[in-house]
Amino acid sequence: MTDFSKTRAMFDIPEGMIYLNGNSLGPMPKVAPERMTRFLQDEWRTELIRGWNTKGWWMQTNTLGDRVAKLIGAAPGTTVVSDTLSIKVFQAVGAALALVPDRKVILSDNGNFPSDLYIAQGLIKFKDAGYELRAPEPEEVLANITEEVGVVMLTEVDYRTGRKHDMAKIISRAHEVGAVVVWDLAHSAGAIPVDVAGLDADFAIGCTYKYLNAGPGAPAFIYVAPRLIDQVEPVLSGWYGHEAPFAFETTYRPAPSKIERMRIGTPSIAAFTLLDAALDIWEGVDLQDLHAETIELSELFIKEVEARCPGVTFAGPRDPAQRGGHVALRYENSYALMQALIARKVIGDFREPDTMRFGITPLFINESDILEAVSRMEDILATDAWKSPEYQVKAAVT
Amino acid sequence: MTDFSKTRAMFDIPEGMIYLNGNSLGPMPKVAPERMTRFLQDEWRTELIRGWNTKGWWMQTNTLGDRVAKLIGAAPGTTVVSDTLSIKVFQAVGAALALVPDRKVILSDNGNFPSDLYIAQGLIKFKDAGYELRAPEPEEVLANITEEVGVVMLTEVDYRTGRKHDMAKIISRAHEVGAVVVWDLAHSAGAIPVDVAGLDADFAIGCTYKYLNAGPGAPAFIYVAPRLIDQVEPVLSGWYGHEAPFAFETTYRPAPSKIERMRIGTPSIAAFTLLDAALDIWEGVDLQDLHAETIELSELFIKEVEARCPGVTFAGPRDPAQRGGHVALRYENSYALMQALIARKVIGDFREPDTMRFGITPLFINESDILEAVSRMEDILATDAWKSPEYQVKAAVT
Repeated sequence: MTDFSKTRAMFDIPEGMIYLNGNSLGPMPKVAPERMTRFLQDEWRTELIRGWNTKGWWMQTNTLGDRVAKLIGAAPGTTVVSDTLSIKVFQAVGAALALVPDRKVILSDNGNFPSDLYIAQGLIKFKDAGYELRAPEPEEVLANITEEVGVVMLTEVDYRTGRKHDMAKIISRAHEVGAVVVWDLAHSAGAIPVDVAGLDADFAIGCTYKYLNAGPGAPAFIYVAPRLIDQVEPVLSGWYGHEAPFAFETTYRPAPSKIERMRIGTPSIAAFTLLDAALDIWEGVDLQDLHAETIELSELFIKEVEARCPGVTFAGPRDPAQRGGHVALRYENSYALMQALIARKVIGDFREPDTMRFGITPLFINESDILEAVSRMEDILATDAWKSPEYQVKAAVT
Repeated sequence: MTDFSKTRAMFDIPEGMIYLNGNSLGPMPKVAPERMTRFLQDEWRTELIRGWNTKGWWMQTNTLGDRVAKLIGAAPGTTVVSDTLSIKVFQAVGAALALVPDRKVILSDNGNFPSDLYIAQGLIKFKDAGYELRAPEPEEVLANITEEVGVVMLTEVDYRTGRKHDMAKIISRAHEVGAVVVWDLAHSAGAIPVDVAGLDADFAIGCTYKYLNAGPGAPAFIYVAPRLIDQVEPVLSGWYGHEAPFAFETTYRPAPSKIERMRIGTPSIAAFTLLDAALDIWEGVDLQDLHAETIELSELFIKEVEARCPGVTFAGPRDPAQRGGHVALRYENSYALMQALIARKVIGDFREPDTMRFGITPLFINESDILEAVSRMEDILATDAWKSPEYQVKAAVT
């Protein structure tokens, strides 16, 4: 059984704060400053250009990729990290389309994270070859996987409601009709168990700044099924994915049958350093334990809110097996209530038009945090504190 | 007159090392560890998700972009930083092509950095609409700018020889025939004066880990001429470039008439922190002074090498006005000679097939460094030390 008091002790969370926003930006691992200083002093400062060899920088896309792979049920050598998630969407969808050259439909859903939809729209416009993006309601996705569909592009866990797609059913239906699936695991990796290899997923992508706690704007990752990798034609064909990057040839040749071909340009080693430090926390964690405890804490949170916070309603699926790692709530003025909570050091976030999100992970949240968070919400409601004018004005970045 | 003894004192370079590889990876500014610790402790750890507002993370793409803009002769509001240079090549060339919809030729040269050529090749293959990449000898570029050419994609300073293209002539010729130019300033920014606005450049891109000293894999930048920005259709259309990213609409709308539309996904704030620290060094630097001193030091280096190092030949343009910030040399075994130099703490690098590169910047290199570097080379040659077997085996990353 995973000891979550140990993982909790590995984070540096400000005194008195209940941080329920790890679904947006994870908190800082205690070792981060020391590891960063070591990178700066012993690696960049001391080794300088030689660090690409002597400190293994060149292969951190892969060594860190292998560590992320473990958390999504992928084998070593199938996942690399770098860039941003938006770039990974482009890369995965671009590669997926080339695998189904006769099909012109990309199927997503209208609850997908907007950037995924935007990237697909930009890609379609650029390619200018009659592609179409369909985005029905999430519940209608399965019925819309027809033989017209080339690529299914979905985020497993809905960023607003926390509702989870059934990966197994969707993959199996997509493969039945000859479609390829790209999974965005932004709200899955580190939140719930994922088994990309066991489910025979085609492509998976995600970020590491949410449940993986690698800091603001931390690197993204991409997984490609080994059975597909040598058919993948990289669209973003940078030198880092070349078979022989240091031969400086003038013609691109993707690294043969290797995930290396999904590498693009020279990655930030400072960002990798924080990811490496953050991944240490996962060494003793069993994802099944994490999931069980997430459900326990989430159910407690929902039950207490419903009992003690009049007017606040739960906005996600009732069955915890259908949810990811966060709980969505609604109120008559969700924005103001969230601001009042933040002022009382209960940190969640607001998503247009009316959703409050609370990320719940036993990695650094325990039962008494949950009870205390609900008490503070109860108090805000009882005193109408959320009506204060200061909570009504939206910040630039919400 | 810029006081380069002051900038030299702002770097932390290991004792005894003569670092002539700032053209590949700049050395660490002394303030970097402290600034990073401050970001980790006072920003990520303390502010957590609120840092996007309270610490200005969200707009660092632009605030740092404005600081880089100054170094390339661009106005505020025309440059943003993020991602890698390979991504910026894709973004710029993709946007440029859409401005000349009836033209099918991308013109580059065969001395361009391979990743630029690779990215163009991947883009052409993906678009699959009859585009052609032409890469003649660098000297033939001007003559090849014909009315067939839509986009001219060049690196101003050749990564091997240091040879500089004539930006003014090429831009003027390109505009004459209705072509758009994308300049890669990877080896220009911080090495030589650049005036993208004065020369009426269309697009410019570059990296910040070379002469700008922001650390391994530091962010790239992109400049778009203000007269073009509202025509630019972003190909990599991520949420960070949306007009209203926090409205979470399902349709992409680029930020109107603003460089913001060249932003893609959530950027690494750790990487930005190092860039911010590194840019402080430029506050007191006049780029004309820097260039004059670079020429002084380079001419001294070449003269001394030719006088004292038999068999070593200069491999760049004789006229210093035709060069960027590094000096290229050749020897009968350039690789082994460079390894022997590195072992004696004179750090340069080797580029296939036979080039030794020495980055020369007064920012942290002075006359006595140059003389000492040549003395060590002279000694290696006099004693045949480069013939030692340990210097013959190429490292994975050279």
